[in-house]
Amino acid sequence: MTPDDATSADAPVLDLGASSLEITRALCDIPSVSDDEGTITEAIIRSLEGLDHLEVMRDADTIVARTTLGRARRVVIAGHTDTVPINHNLPTRVETDGGVDYLWGRGTVDMKAGVAVQLKLAAELTDPPVDLTWIWYDHEEVDSSLNGLGRVARNRPELLAGDFAILGEPTNSQVEGGCNGTMRAEIRLTGLRAHSARAWVGKNAIHAAAPVLDILAVYEPAQVEVDGLVYREGLNAVLIAGGVATNVIPDECIITVNYRFAPSKSAADAEAHLRETFAGFELVVTDSAEGARPGLNDPLALEFVAAVGGVAKPKYGWTDVARFSALGIPAVNYGPGDPLLAHADDERVAIEQIAECERGLRAWLTGP
Amino acid sequence: MTPDDATSADAPVLDLGASSLEITRALCDIPSVSDDEGTITEAIIRSLEGLDHLEVMRDADTIVARTTLGRARRVVIAGHTDTVPINHNLPTRVETDGGVDYLWGRGTVDMKAGVAVQLKLAAELTDPPVDLTWIWYDHEEVDSSLNGLGRVARNRPELLAGDFAILGEPTNSQVEGGCNGTMRAEIRLTGLRAHSARAWVGKNAIHAAAPVLDILAVYEPAQVEVDGLVYREGLNAVLIAGGVATNVIPDECIITVNYRFAPSKSAADAEAHLRETFAGFELVVTDSAEGARPGLNDPLALEFVAAVGGVAKPKYGWTDVARFSALGIPAVNYGPGDPLLAHADDERVAIEQIAECERGLRAWLTGP
Repeated sequence: MTPDDATSADAPVLDLGASSLEITRALCDIPSVSDDEGTITEAIIRSLEGLDHLEVMRDADTIVARTTLGRARRVVIAGHTDTVPINHNLPTRVETDGGVDYLWGRGTVDMKAGVAVQLKLAAELTDPPVDLTWIWYDHEEVDSSLNGLGRVARNRPELLAGDFAILGEPTNSQVEGGCNGTMRAEIRLTGLRAHSARAWVGKNAIHAAAPVLDILAVYEPAQVEVDGLVYREGLNAVLIAGGVATNVIPDECIITVNYRFAPSKSAADAEAHLRETFAGFELVVTDSAEGARPGLNDPLALEFVAAVGGVAKPKYGWTDVARFSALGIPAVNYGPGDPLLAHADDERVAIEQIAECERGLRAWLTGP
Repeated sequence: MTPDDATSADAPVLDLGASSLEITRALCDIPSVSDDEGTITEAIIRSLEGLDHLEVMRDADTIVARTTLGRARRVVIAGHTDTVPINHNLPTRVETDGGVDYLWGRGTVDMKAGVAVQLKLAAELTDPPVDLTWIWYDHEEVDSSLNGLGRVARNRPELLAGDFAILGEPTNSQVEGGCNGTMRAEIRLTGLRAHSARAWVGKNAIHAAAPVLDILAVYEPAQVEVDGLVYREGLNAVLIAGGVATNVIPDECIITVNYRFAPSKSAADAEAHLRETFAGFELVVTDSAEGARPGLNDPLALEFVAAVGGVAKPKYGWTDVARFSALGIPAVNYGPGDPLLAHADDERVAIEQIAECERGLRAWLTGP
């Protein structure tokens, strides 16, 4: 990672003096589906040129821009620049529904509006009371191994150093603390093949899945309080597959379950719970990521929640706050947009939420 | 269908004066996987040349060879010439296992040994007490719509006319009467997609499959007596598929069930039973074929069972006897080979069963 000199004169121009709404539109109108973040990265780099209060660095398509004012505390604020694939939902448009004005289109919620607010404040806040590290990163919407924030955490963790972190994922501009962990496991039922005309010669692996689905159907997920927030867990079959042909008794059936577990639990705790829940069945953990405690006992976090004027809520979905948590940095999610509309074909952000997020962050970062 | 003049001089030579074992080997060594029956058909046609007691006709790769002696009764004896794909199990070899001599290789059981016995007797029995219609047909091992016997039944049913029919499918050279019917149905469970981090927003279609699998797991198949034989039914899930992605609550799960039902039941009876068994669930019948009553009340059938010296048993798997049954012709299965070894990589026929089948058929067809 080196200070970047190689911006392209062809990249679209972003005017960080425009409103956060206009910046959001400009960002959305630069296609940046995962693995195609080059153009948007260059546009951002270029928009930061001449901002002497920021040291700007680039690692592939991740940008780190930070103040070096020698403040006692440093806050990291991050957002990803990629989106899931466009589905006839670009360019953006403004629409009104039920008296609410929305900016409609791919990326408006997840998470160009959050990035726009961050960019505007990065340019504007030349003398904040804390040092700031702004991060805009690539490959968030695809396999975790490709994640730009993860790459920096592995290769240059010192660049993520800070006392508190804010991830701009959509939260309806309310503070959502930490996140649940996630674990996937396969439960494998085996049998013995036979011609289905003589089923009694075989053993049906799909029928053997009945007690597993029975367990799932009546499972009551826990609600776990962590640092004052209540995390709602979940345990679900997400895939099931079994069978060979329509005249063969199946010898294998695989159920993939996804367990979302409270951030107070380790991956080992989660696996133990799965093994206890499905005792007697063959179970193979295929994937897991621990959650992140909300960290809302931290003074900076308490000030932040107070400044944005809200009540913190738990975040259920796994987000990159867990990467900060793994580095020992308390982290929360805070960004415009309804997370239920992320990735939806009718993705749209309430315009007022963009302004609300901007006001909240500015109020806290300029201090009382 | 016309008397055939177009045999190829290139087809392998079959000597119908050889032993039925040698004819079996010769037939197996002519590759004839479904849709590639041309060569074996020509070889058979050629082997019948000069047999003046037979009228030989060809329809695509199906051969009909019949006596026209003006007998009071006519018996139809049929076998298919195709096999499932070869899997390193040709050429044939003789092996001894546990003191029993086997002919090993693809097609030995299903059903070149049966065809060999039929060919040998077709050539030998110039003056049988009943008129005989021999049929060797194509495309039995693939989609039913391609079946050569079915094609003749649709286009020239008069060629299948007779008072009794014997199909040479493997039965360990014992008489197996009729066959079970078969029906396939899809049971469709629906739900509502949601992110698996917020499962309570959705409805899990895989969990909804639990009661269906519970029904299957405890289902007790009936045993139904038809014309003195007891048919064992079966109801099994043969396929299950559900799920979208590992982070999505699935909105669909489909279970394919296969019901094997006694030949005393119609397809409508079978469907009614499925609808009653899975009451309250969406069920779509995708495929069905009624079974065949064993027809063992027929005098010719009783004589046949007595002549081959055995006790008739029920046939569980659906076979082409049902095509005769649909034309009102009682039909049984009778051929060398263990049906459990059909299609197996270690397919092999006990050599003694080939001779036993030949003796049985000859004894009956030459009369007391």
